[in-house]
Amino acid sequence: MSAVPHVILLEHTPEPERIVAAAARLCYSTSSATDLLERLTPERTESFVSHLMSMGHESPIEHISFTFAIEGISRACSHQLVRHRIASYSQQSQRYVNMQQFDYVLPPQIADNSEAAGLFEAQMRAAQEAYDKLIELGMQQEDARYLLPNACETKLVMTMNARSLLNFFALRICNRAQWEIRALANQMLDLVKPVAPSIFAKAGPSCISEGICREGDLSCGNRLS
Amino acid sequence: MSAVPHVILLEHTPEPERIVAAAARLCYSTSSATDLLERLTPERTESFVSHLMSMGHESPIEHISFTFAIEGISRACSHQLVRHRIASYSQQSQRYVNMQQFDYVLPPQIADNSEAAGLFEAQMRAAQEAYDKLIELGMQQEDARYLLPNACETKLVMTMNARSLLNFFALRICNRAQWEIRALANQMLDLVKPVAPSIFAKAGPSCISEGICREGDLSCGNRLS
Amino acid sequence: MSAVPHVILLEHTPEPERIVAAAARLCYSTSSATDLLERLTPERTESFVSHLMSMGHESPIEHISFTFAIEGISRACSHQLVRHRIASYSQQSQRYVNMQQFDYVLPPQIADNSEAAGLFEAQMRAAQEAYDKLIELGMQQEDARYLLPNACETKLVMTMNARSLLNFFALRICNRAQWEIRALANQMLDLVKPVAPSIFAKAGPSCISEGICREGDLSCGNRLS
Amino acid sequence: MSAVPHVILLEHTPEPERIVAAAARLCYSTSSATDLLERLTPERTESFVSHLMSMGHESPIEHISFTFAIEGISRACSHQLVRHRIASYSQQSQRYVNMQQFDYVLPPQIADNSEAAGLFEAQMRAAQEAYDKLIELGMQQEDARYLLPNACETKLVMTMNARSLLNFFALRICNRAQWEIRALANQMLDLVKPVAPSIFAKAGPSCISEGICREGDLSCGNRLS
Repeated sequence: MSAVPHVILLEHTPEPERIVAAAARLCYSTSSATDLLERLTPERTESFVSHLMSMGHESPIEHISFTFAIEGISRACSHQLVRHRIASYSQQSQRYVNMQQFDYVLPPQIADNSEAAGLFEAQMRAAQEAYDKLIELGMQQEDARYLLPNACETKLVMTMNARSLLNFFALRICNRAQWEIRALANQMLDLVKPVAPSIFAKAGPSCISEGICREGDLSCGNRLS
Repeated sequence: MSAVPHVILLEHTPEPERIVAAAARLCYSTSSATDLLERLTPERTESFVSHLMSMGHESPIEHISFTFAIEGISRACSHQLVRHRIASYSQQSQRYVNMQQFDYVLPPQIADNSEAAGLFEAQMRAAQEAYDKLIELGMQQEDARYLLPNACETKLVMTMNARSLLNFFALRICNRAQWEIRALANQMLDLVKPVAPSIFAKAGPSCISEGICREGDLSCGNRLS
Repeated sequence: MSAVPHVILLEHTPEPERIVAAAARLCYSTSSATDLLERLTPERTESFVSHLMSMGHESPIEHISFTFAIEGISRACSHQLVRHRIASYSQQSQRYVNMQQFDYVLPPQIADNSEAAGLFEAQMRAAQEAYDKLIELGMQQEDARYLLPNACETKLVMTMNARSLLNFFALRICNRAQWEIRALANQMLDLVKPVAPSIFAKAGPSCISEGICREGDLSCGNRLS
Repeated sequence: MSAVPHVILLEHTPEPERIVAAAARLCYSTSSATDLLERLTPERTESFVSHLMSMGHESPIEHISFTFAIEGISRACSHQLVRHRIASYSQQSQRYVNMQQFDYVLPPQIADNSEAAGLFEAQMRAAQEAYDKLIELGMQQEDARYLLPNACETKLVMTMNARSLLNFFALRICNRAQWEIRALANQMLDLVKPVAPSIFAKAGPSCISEGICREGDLSCGNRLS
């Protein structure tokens, strides 16, 4: 069965932009953090945080973090995802969870080609059957899973602070990233933008955030794609 | 004027232990994070998180973070504090904030000895006067501050996740840590314990959390001090 | 074709234990690092580093790092490996490298069962054929690879400092780790031990390094397996 | 006595640019790391690493690290230094080392003004006398040091990988950084440049590395100062 990507924002630091504004102000003030917080109206917060972001002063946005439940992504995608090291992950284990009814991610380009899609889906069924047979033969789950495909669906809970998220969006919303992690990153951005609009206003690859591309020959050519 | 240490828990991940329990369960389950969250009654959450902590499985507690406003600590203490690298800091700057009325931390051992206290306080006044004079002579704040003492009060906003906090408590509540950062760590622990009681139940040095001390000849000898 | 795990220690910080000893001494001395280095005979270095390790004072061992070339491991194993975040990785990409002759890792338990091994190997051949066919049909490598198995061989260059390595050995030489990453960790330990014998003398799970196990019901029961 | 800043490159990963080139190539190749290393002549290494840097692909440069002995810097400077978290530090302790003959850093702007310099130096002598007196009165070193100035000299051993160093140079060679850490960063850059010339060719603030400044109103105005 084909997996559908699904992301939920489980929790986040409450009043994220107010915390960021107070932390940033503290560096240049004789006032206490609580006094600074009291004086921060929504308007002041927004204008101060927007100014901060335009200067590229990112350290105060580390104070706020976002926890996502992610489902319906492939192990190919999760292998890329966990390369982001300033983040925390709890991932469904193929060692401990039985995969006798695994879902899988069908790449859109393959879905659009009936011959390719047929081949792909047959291979998924064959993998499922072989896995089930290995379990029947007494093989361990952790070993039987060696024949499961990269397409196999996985689930995670992931937490990133806003600074790490901006870096994630810069790298993974870029057209050079693979379509699956790009879709994931876009879903995540859609979820955090309403919560911290001034922080994530220009989130994305450098063509969006700075109007320039550093990818040289590898550039997609779409400055604002 | 003598500074008084003051710590406030500004924000934290809402429902921290429920998030931790759901993340930890996800690793061993076919269910979605949202289904797992729904099934987590307070009792189940507590028992599951307590079990997790007893096993030393700390990775799921990284999902929750705590943001503190800290005041009335010395720059001696903040220099130790910022050595903890899995954390985020916004600290009052001595380059940009005028120190013409600096507060300072008076070590208790010195406060208890009138001759020592007299010497210490005279030195604080002399530092203040010399600083003010340098500013009058047109010196920059960032240079004049070179004669300010380690005792000088500073303010910070700091964020740590629960795993990093446990490490902080293990090292800094230990009797081998200096009294000031120990007092700070104890205040922080008092603030997070009611919010995540099962996670921080045995927080502290290894003599508390594990009943053993590895400090060898340097041990305080108080296993449960 | 079945992959054979292969690890090489490409480079490491020269004179690692001398650097560690000098760094650790500096904390408690009025001497310069170069003076401390001069006075460090091999005997003093060894005895000082051994003392340091027995006290669990690990921060000075961060100064030395080790770079490995790793081949013949599965993507199942590399997915576990890159979860270690205090490390640096450069991994062969399945997006950019053609997999038309992929090697794979055959789990020993499966190799030992002829029926299981036959099934497994047939599935590997089917994956290779389906992958090749998708490429012929004009599918992108990055999409065709979705049907490749976890068993598929990968290559990496990885760098870790000694503190992160000790943590890696503690978690991955443990009998609770999967056989493949355990074999990898043991090979790595064999390579670093001659280079920094006092640092890695007791490397491994807590049953080896401390004589205790915290895994509770999940313990293998072999305290010194 | 006035401290003189002094930095030595104690150790570094041998053949750093060759390791970086091999690691980067591995990502896009079917060859093994050792085969790639063999084929890397000095010319190919240089041209490949230069290309990598021009694209901003920094992850492979994490594999190489540099260990410095740093002396003659103030505690004001070291407090800024240790804020760089992707690095390892061993610092001389004011708790355990007696400061009865402390050196100090005299800011150049103050040195150039005889009245200011006189005041500053008198304050240093007074701090030394008060510290010595507190020790005589039986106060602990860790408490007596509270009256020592920010100017007080400290020593450290510090290790950073090349990616973290580039970030350090970007922030601390900038004219907005304070003169002392800027001088330190420049000394460090002078030491690493001959060892890894292609990696550090354009190291420095964004006005040097990219020809742009993001500091807005706070810009020094010297694009290439």
